[in-house]
Amino acid sequence: MGKALIEKGQIYRNEEAWELFSNLITEITPSKVFVIADENTNKHCLPYFLKKINFEKSPEIITIPAGEIEKNISTCLKVWEILSDKGADRTSLIINLGGGVVTDLGGFVASTFKRGLRFINVPTSLLAMVDASVGGKNGVDLGHIKNQIGVINLPEMVILDTAFLETLPSEHITSGLAEMLKHGIIQSEAYWKRIKNINRENKVELNTLIWDSIEIKKAIVAKDPFEKNLRKTLNYGHTLGHAIESYFLENPNKKTLLHGESVAAGIILATYISKDLYGFPENKLQDISESMFKHFPKQTFSKKDIEAIINLLIFDKKNRNGKVLFVLLEDIGRHKTDCVVSNKLIFRAFEYYKNF
Amino acid sequence: MGKALIEKGQIYRNEEAWELFSNLITEITPSKVFVIADENTNKHCLPYFLKKINFEKSPEIITIPAGEIEKNISTCLKVWEILSDKGADRTSLIINLGGGVVTDLGGFVASTFKRGLRFINVPTSLLAMVDASVGGKNGVDLGHIKNQIGVINLPEMVILDTAFLETLPSEHITSGLAEMLKHGIIQSEAYWKRIKNINRENKVELNTLIWDSIEIKKAIVAKDPFEKNLRKTLNYGHTLGHAIESYFLENPNKKTLLHGESVAAGIILATYISKDLYGFPENKLQDISESMFKHFPKQTFSKKDIEAIINLLIFDKKNRNGKVLFVLLEDIGRHKTDCVVSNKLIFRAFEYYKNF
Repeated sequence: MGKALIEKGQIYRNEEAWELFSNLITEITPSKVFVIADENTNKHCLPYFLKKINFEKSPEIITIPAGEIEKNISTCLKVWEILSDKGADRTSLIINLGGGVVTDLGGFVASTFKRGLRFINVPTSLLAMVDASVGGKNGVDLGHIKNQIGVINLPEMVILDTAFLETLPSEHITSGLAEMLKHGIIQSEAYWKRIKNINRENKVELNTLIWDSIEIKKAIVAKDPFEKNLRKTLNYGHTLGHAIESYFLENPNKKTLLHGESVAAGIILATYISKDLYGFPENKLQDISESMFKHFPKQTFSKKDIEAIINLLIFDKKNRNGKVLFVLLEDIGRHKTDCVVSNKLIFRAFEYYKNF
Repeated sequence: MGKALIEKGQIYRNEEAWELFSNLITEITPSKVFVIADENTNKHCLPYFLKKINFEKSPEIITIPAGEIEKNISTCLKVWEILSDKGADRTSLIINLGGGVVTDLGGFVASTFKRGLRFINVPTSLLAMVDASVGGKNGVDLGHIKNQIGVINLPEMVILDTAFLETLPSEHITSGLAEMLKHGIIQSEAYWKRIKNINRENKVELNTLIWDSIEIKKAIVAKDPFEKNLRKTLNYGHTLGHAIESYFLENPNKKTLLHGESVAAGIILATYISKDLYGFPENKLQDISESMFKHFPKQTFSKKDIEAIINLLIFDKKNRNGKVLFVLLEDIGRHKTDCVVSNKLIFRAFEYYKNF
């Protein structure tokens, strides 16, 4: 294959991706290459990554501790300082090798160091592949509020290699599934049917569904890059999902939930609310709830938990004028944005979730 | 005057600026307005600012301590947290009222909060008016390294009202003059002659020269927005100037220099080096040195100081592949970029400075 044109922000697959990546390195001749990884991807993904590419000089590896709790400004500060000490300049290249925490944080660090270095994302978790890899959003949490600080800036390219999934613990595959299920619900009855019955042991099937899921997200982002309307549907299940995730993260008596686990709960809740407010079909609510509980364990929420979760909703980025705004559905693939939902209805949705 | 179109990033003057600003507020109807000021501008500039605009609701005032030392990520964190607590959302508007520290830091805070809020810059110092107000650069220092973290992002508009200059101590006017003198040296013999003989007590003359200085910077930025070549000339005198400023800032035995004071020294040093390497005319070097020392006091540099300053050069953002790169001049208005300069020559330049 000759030199192909690489389109900024685009996702390339498997061998084609690695070849284009090599071309890119030759083309931009970075002064230095830095790989940002976390403890897990340093151990499980870095050896494979380094075998895929012939670097003239070994890249510098910057390893951060693993976990959502590390996705904050203080970790950024450490990485900026390492970049500074190791002499990163404007022609250096940053490669983010990891899950959503690494690609979100690394993308932000790169976009702001010396007002912006080139970066490449190599998502290694299913969640990062189907969600964080599209659309150029990056950033970190502020206290317990998710993704509060960040910018929108495209990576030079995204390398999608599903071989990395073999390094993932099973519950992390499940976590990524939540976003794929969401893509079905917000966009396409056909995809929903295929994804809810996925046989995750079948790698060919999983790989096809991953790519189709990415295509769904790409199409949405392309139609509405500035999140005026349609792109907000990607937030389906996330208004309550993020609040649940934040609440469990900051509460010492709760186990930390994976992003997908929180989103799965958020999807059931949003779908119940959709039925109540916009007549989302009851049989499909039943179908969605069943499918979610097939993959994700039920969480317990006390009245106090629910009150605290509702209080966290005010920090959602989609809000305006102090009003909490939901994305809801009239049916699969038919969305309503900027929906105001009463606290009473949110409590009823949690009742439905508990009694399912 | 009817509704005029406001061009993003543009600078508007005096009464026209305030009128356009009122129109903008009516047009975008921000959910909330926040003013970021420092202790000084809160006291000396905010009352004037608030009289100029009829806000429906009083804006929230966020006051940071004054001084370059506050231009860091930890101050950003405090401002982000206040924005979060006070319910800033994506339709909120941030107004940065102050000198370069406030507009640089406030622009970065706004550009990164919830991935970007709208902001307006109201520069109140001469330096911020003639330098920081053009080109959309923002950011903060990392330790003692200046502007290491930031992005490029344009404000909705810049309000230039020279009435604010009357609140400034005299040495701050001098500090801003350094950038105006630089604009003459890098771009135009005619402007250089006018600015070096400026009578700063004559307000009409000062105002005209400020606007012309802005026009020079705007023309350079427009020709080379991505700083491939020409825009690098705006860095003239800043390679050593920034290193001197950083060194004096972090050294407890030195008084903190104003930006313009460091840049003035940097300009003399860079012009000496230009003469040595590229035959910059000796009589003009003499003229520039005299003009600088007319406005700016001579600083003392020991051998140890100079060594430490040279060590700081490696952090300059214009560097590539670990090489320190200078912008130099063959003559007034004729630049050379990416010039490699030996440490020995830098020492000789300091000798020239000391013995002048």
